[in-house]
Amino acid sequence: MLENRITEFETLKGLLDNRQYSSFMRRIDGMNPVDAAEFLAWLPEQRQPFAFRLLKKDTAAEIFAELEPEMQSRIVEALSDRETGGILDELATDDAVDLLEEMPAGVVKRLLRVASPDTRAELNRFLAYPEDSAGSVMTSEFIDLTGGMTCAQAVEHIRRTGLDKETVYSAYVTDASRVLQGVVELRQLLFASPEQSIRELMDENVIYAHTEDDRETVANLISHYDLLVLPVVDREERLVGIVTVDDALDVLEEEATEDIEKMAAILPTDKPYLRTSVWETWKKRIPWLLLLMVSATFTSTIITHYETAIGTYAILTAFFPMLMDTGGNAGGQTSVTIIRGLSLGDIRLRDLLRVLWKEFRVSLLCGLTLAAATFLKVYAVDFRFRPTALLENGAVQNNLLVTAAVSLTVFGAIVVAKLVGTLLPMGAKRLGFDPAVMASPFITTIVDAVTLMIYFAVASAVLGL
Amino acid sequence: MLENRITEFETLKGLLDNRQYSSFMRRIDGMNPVDAAEFLAWLPEQRQPFAFRLLKKDTAAEIFAELEPEMQSRIVEALSDRETGGILDELATDDAVDLLEEMPAGVVKRLLRVASPDTRAELNRFLAYPEDSAGSVMTSEFIDLTGGMTCAQAVEHIRRTGLDKETVYSAYVTDASRVLQGVVELRQLLFASPEQSIRELMDENVIYAHTEDDRETVANLISHYDLLVLPVVDREERLVGIVTVDDALDVLEEEATEDIEKMAAILPTDKPYLRTSVWETWKKRIPWLLLLMVSATFTSTIITHYETAIGTYAILTAFFPMLMDTGGNAGGQTSVTIIRGLSLGDIRLRDLLRVLWKEFRVSLLCGLTLAAATFLKVYAVDFRFRPTALLENGAVQNNLLVTAAVSLTVFGAIVVAKLVGTLLPMGAKRLGFDPAVMASPFITTIVDAVTLMIYFAVASAVLGL
Repeated sequence: MLENRITEFETLKGLLDNRQYSSFMRRIDGMNPVDAAEFLAWLPEQRQPFAFRLLKKDTAAEIFAELEPEMQSRIVEALSDRETGGILDELATDDAVDLLEEMPAGVVKRLLRVASPDTRAELNRFLAYPEDSAGSVMTSEFIDLTGGMTCAQAVEHIRRTGLDKETVYSAYVTDASRVLQGVVELRQLLFASPEQSIRELMDENVIYAHTEDDRETVANLISHYDLLVLPVVDREERLVGIVTVDDALDVLEEEATEDIEKMAAILPTDKPYLRTSVWETWKKRIPWLLLLMVSATFTSTIITHYETAIGTYAILTAFFPMLMDTGGNAGGQTSVTIIRGLSLGDIRLRDLLRVLWKEFRVSLLCGLTLAAATFLKVYAVDFRFRPTALLENGAVQNNLLVTAAVSLTVFGAIVVAKLVGTLLPMGAKRLGFDPAVMASPFITTIVDAVTLMIYFAVASAVLGL
Repeated sequence: MLENRITEFETLKGLLDNRQYSSFMRRIDGMNPVDAAEFLAWLPEQRQPFAFRLLKKDTAAEIFAELEPEMQSRIVEALSDRETGGILDELATDDAVDLLEEMPAGVVKRLLRVASPDTRAELNRFLAYPEDSAGSVMTSEFIDLTGGMTCAQAVEHIRRTGLDKETVYSAYVTDASRVLQGVVELRQLLFASPEQSIRELMDENVIYAHTEDDRETVANLISHYDLLVLPVVDREERLVGIVTVDDALDVLEEEATEDIEKMAAILPTDKPYLRTSVWETWKKRIPWLLLLMVSATFTSTIITHYETAIGTYAILTAFFPMLMDTGGNAGGQTSVTIIRGLSLGDIRLRDLLRVLWKEFRVSLLCGLTLAAATFLKVYAVDFRFRPTALLENGAVQNNLLVTAAVSLTVFGAIVVAKLVGTLLPMGAKRLGFDPAVMASPFITTIVDAVTLMIYFAVASAVLGL
């Protein structure tokens, strides 16, 4: 598919280069707006505004909505005020709001000035909704019906007013003060008798959100109930907008990426990787690296405390990385499972005891398996190929006891890691923090410290250090 | 919202308990099927089949499709063959296929026996598609039109045949041999003149998938082009099914969870956490823990090799955990970013050099910052509060040189970690493996080994070990 597209892009560019503008316009008009936007982005930068200017007004707005913010600014800068105002008026409210949120303040002022008074009033209202709220992702282009209409009148109303609406497949019934009363699917209208009243036909059991709800809640409702559209109401239950399923898809994808980034100790970005500058990437990554480096003070203090023992029994240090990594991996497995479960709603806060009890049993199983495997591997393989060492103090190193200490620690590390991996994300959620920041790197630091304490305690006891 | 629902569930259960069956039926009939399914799951297990039996046939199928697989089996076991056959016939093909894929072989046989011959033939065809293919997630309930119809005829055709279709909002135009020709949106039919021919109105530029395409590809197409429905064709380009956006949402959510699990060194499951048994969870987690434990042989070999040096300069081991964790975190940040970028399509294989160059510059910045911070922290804070140590061999420990060795290693570890974190997932993708398994835990092991080698090389040179 991709190769075909590049050929098509070349053909289109050829038409531009040979000044066959009308063929170009016909061809790009028949394209899917997503593909057309990708074609414009694929053109050399200096050709983009020119190509964009050739588009018909309504096609232009459709394609403009699909462009990346950087390219939108470039095009806005190249257009005249009249042209920009035209596009802004044609854009769906949610796309126009997206655009304004990405632009620098100066450009926003200019854009609002060139928009028509209606568009301007509408945009100002939408810009007041908090970021990431339902209000900020909804669009006001919905179809409203009144309960008194017949089905035939409703279809006629949709036909008359629906052409530039975001969707015509769900229409909402409101009363005189615009309070949401019910929903009618176009599908129902198709199968109903023309004389039936909308009040009779409508489903009063509407699933809806409030403007100040989080956009993730909205997306989860759409996903949970398999909706195509979700209506959004204000505090007085008046219908003010709708969110469509394609926006919900984008939200869920962005939120998953954000969670993944947080779990990997990165501050979340909303820009694609290749369009983020080196400095920005650095800024997103360095805070956690610094914090985790500083928090490693605990582990180094513990080790320093046992410096003499290590001087005598240096072989103990050979197992540091394995012990740290195993604890970190075991804790990471648990915390990541819990974080994802919390975000999908599979796990709730009140499940804490059930989750702890389950993780405890899993940790016993994993701990036993891994301790046994470690014992076999270290004693039967690692030590077999190594001459019996003499210690600094002249004694013979007891391989069996060293192996026992390592295996016991593996067991303890896994049990602790799985419990910490459960408690930390659930505790964060309880306190109103985002559980995702409690993922592996943070847990690793705690588990490292605990593992070292177990290791030295066990080794001291077993080896008599 | 949740509290309201529990109250509603209590009311419904009250009706059942008081044998007010007709009120119960009226009420559950008006509910959203997702909520009704949750109500049934919320009932005590032994009451579920009885409550289910009270439902009307079409409502029953709708609600049945929303139930979890375990509950579906429980209900199928409690129903008579005739009842089960009825439900199977009412289910949309994709839901029926889902059901059959979850059931044990014996139950599948029984279900296929009780289904009507048409349903049975259809289901057998669908069950032949490979798991996770477009064929396995599509449904065959779509509307097809012919190019010769007028818009009025098309609307009439949809009215007559559309009642039990998955969606009536997109209709597909096929020729005599069922080859896909174009798509018509119900929306277009609404605004077109009744006499216009479908051939004229249809969009020939259809975006579609093949039955053997991966379901993730299908979901990404739907998301990329903001589609409500995607048609699926066989090798002869004949239309055989459609995938709707709600299924795409589920697929994308499942795939994100799978990626997250793989990144955390867990074998992916498709069951919610609380419904997975302790043994199953253990089986999903232990393979990677074992593998990573065994691969830590490298690190312990390296440390053993420097046992004497450690015996002398035990303080060096105090920085092991910090160095390992920093390398692991830095590598994890990069690999997770790359893996997500690859899966969202933000990063492609041909971007390798660009990505490497960017990560190299980011690693220089992160490395310099962190090395400087480490130097300050270790030299000015850690060593300040600790008496100057005497080494085993009588010399005075040189804190400045130790700090320098640690800081240099931090820098090296970060640069190596970010390069390994780039190369491993992209290499895996190039070789046709899933990049997600190349995430942090795997990279940690490699980076640990390299970091230790750098550390001992630097320490040997600087401290003259």
